[in-house]
Amino acid sequence: MTSIDQTNNFWVMNSMPKGANFAECFEIKQESSIEVPSGSILTKNHYLSMDAGTRMVMTDREDSYLPPTPIGEKLFGTVLGEVVHSNHPDFNVGEKLRSWGQWADYSVVDPNTMYPSKVDDSKTDLVDYVGILGANGWTAYVGVIETGRAKAGDTFVVSAAAGCTGLLVGQIAKIAGCKVIGIAGSDEKCKLICNEFGFDGAINYKSENVSAKLESLCPEGVNVYCDHVGGAITEAVFDNMALFGTVAVSGLLDYYGSSERSPGPKNYDLVLMKRLRIEGFFSPDFYRREHEFNPILRRWMDAGLIKLPIQPTKGLQNLVDAYSKLFDGRNIGKVVVEL
Amino acid sequence: MTSIDQTNNFWVMNSMPKGANFAECFEIKQESSIEVPSGSILTKNHYLSMDAGTRMVMTDREDSYLPPTPIGEKLFGTVLGEVVHSNHPDFNVGEKLRSWGQWADYSVVDPNTMYPSKVDDSKTDLVDYVGILGANGWTAYVGVIETGRAKAGDTFVVSAAAGCTGLLVGQIAKIAGCKVIGIAGSDEKCKLICNEFGFDGAINYKSENVSAKLESLCPEGVNVYCDHVGGAITEAVFDNMALFGTVAVSGLLDYYGSSERSPGPKNYDLVLMKRLRIEGFFSPDFYRREHEFNPILRRWMDAGLIKLPIQPTKGLQNLVDAYSKLFDGRNIGKVVVEL
Repeated sequence: MTSIDQTNNFWVMNSMPKGANFAECFEIKQESSIEVPSGSILTKNHYLSMDAGTRMVMTDREDSYLPPTPIGEKLFGTVLGEVVHSNHPDFNVGEKLRSWGQWADYSVVDPNTMYPSKVDDSKTDLVDYVGILGANGWTAYVGVIETGRAKAGDTFVVSAAAGCTGLLVGQIAKIAGCKVIGIAGSDEKCKLICNEFGFDGAINYKSENVSAKLESLCPEGVNVYCDHVGGAITEAVFDNMALFGTVAVSGLLDYYGSSERSPGPKNYDLVLMKRLRIEGFFSPDFYRREHEFNPILRRWMDAGLIKLPIQPTKGLQNLVDAYSKLFDGRNIGKVVVEL
Repeated sequence: MTSIDQTNNFWVMNSMPKGANFAECFEIKQESSIEVPSGSILTKNHYLSMDAGTRMVMTDREDSYLPPTPIGEKLFGTVLGEVVHSNHPDFNVGEKLRSWGQWADYSVVDPNTMYPSKVDDSKTDLVDYVGILGANGWTAYVGVIETGRAKAGDTFVVSAAAGCTGLLVGQIAKIAGCKVIGIAGSDEKCKLICNEFGFDGAINYKSENVSAKLESLCPEGVNVYCDHVGGAITEAVFDNMALFGTVAVSGLLDYYGSSERSPGPKNYDLVLMKRLRIEGFFSPDFYRREHEFNPILRRWMDAGLIKLPIQPTKGLQNLVDAYSKLFDGRNIGKVVVEL
């Protein structure tokens, strides 16, 4: 254990959020020194990655894929920083790192449990390692290519299409040769994904009938649906799935805020009628495959086939505003807090 | 077109059943001659196969996998018989045939649309061709081996376990090296599947808490679930699925009687939390693969590894009683009407 004399601001969760009332539940605090246990390292953070999936560790549901954050404890997420102190032989001061870490100026990282990965920002922006070259990029790759098994000529639909993973999913589905339709929550987002990101069509679920619009845009049915939301949007897509279609379930945003069980689509029987495959997947399962994904993603990025806008919020004290964007529809591309 | 002077009794559907009130909705009628169109054949039926899946063509739902039976028209199913008249060069009088056909003494079979298949009953009972060597056997094989991808050491659960497909699924999962738990609706059925069919455990869903019993029988979780029912039983199994488990959806018996949409399990979000694969499949998709399945199934049958009790009801006039067994829990193994 080493005690470092360093002022550190950090966020804690004082009570369990209901819905998206994060401002009431989160509090920024300060400590005047940082304890770094033996075997751990300390990073000074440059970016905090804002990811909707972390909402699930702010509930008391027992069956989440991560244990819930205890009340009063520091909040966590993916962070990008550089090593400023090391009690571990594999990590040296000055190295840039992406890892799981506290939402704080400085994070204490246990290399055995917090997935630290050294990153080289000499040829690409550091922030790309929580975008195209991070969990969102890997998730999009797996969703389209592996779980989705998308192939040329398929009709591909993605929800939360202007979000970070959604934008990448749509662009990778285009690389795979699909016709790509995005579902998003504003006309601005719908225009953007078609004009700037190559989507073939878009549906504003707040102003259009999703099922009817899908029927007109996808007369042959939907071969692959990458689902980020669940709920009514998913039901509308189920109605329009083609026989033997695939539903790659990457997120269920509609349910993250709830500690209740989350019902399936009302038309679930279509799994049998249409012989669908519905399959869940997410990034912690393939963190260890970064070395497979990133060369491919990097090549596509360098060729201009995929790009990702970054939405930075400056200052740790503004984290709640940044995080809220993921749930109130203001996010386009990757939301980060820049320190 | 040939007109054959032959008295023929047949069943028609006079009104759409609600639930299982088949006696009110079906009527047996008689005709004094049979019209056999050019290109079609006439079979004298020996067995009518009773299958729960046919319930779905007795609704007005538009998204079923088969078009609904029109009111007043003859009812259909799989039949076993012999050719008594042929207007088609590939079929000769005297040949034994399994095909889609009217529930009648004699069926008019269009070889282009009704899947006729010549069967050899010199070495096995004719009725086996609607059991182990028919759609139930193929479905069980696909459910366990292909869609289920069951492997040695897996914990495998099947619902409607004493039904025809359920019994075969359980026995094939044992061949694959799984620990097999069956869910059935009576103590008699539970005893039977364990004592006579090699299941490792059984749950009577009418008298036991399915979720609690599964938790004690499958402490490591369920790797593969072959679902024939949907509803509350499926929810209990979802709660006990292992990470990366498979739900092979072969039937949704709870929903067949309804023209309403059929809701998914209340805990559908577990598809993401546990990264499940849920996949629907059914036999019309692989009728053409009989030549692949039957040598395997025949070998297992001859080796005593799979067996199937036949529950015959004698007489076309008693068809409603036979068919009702599929929905009121009286069926054990294969239900047929013997003519």
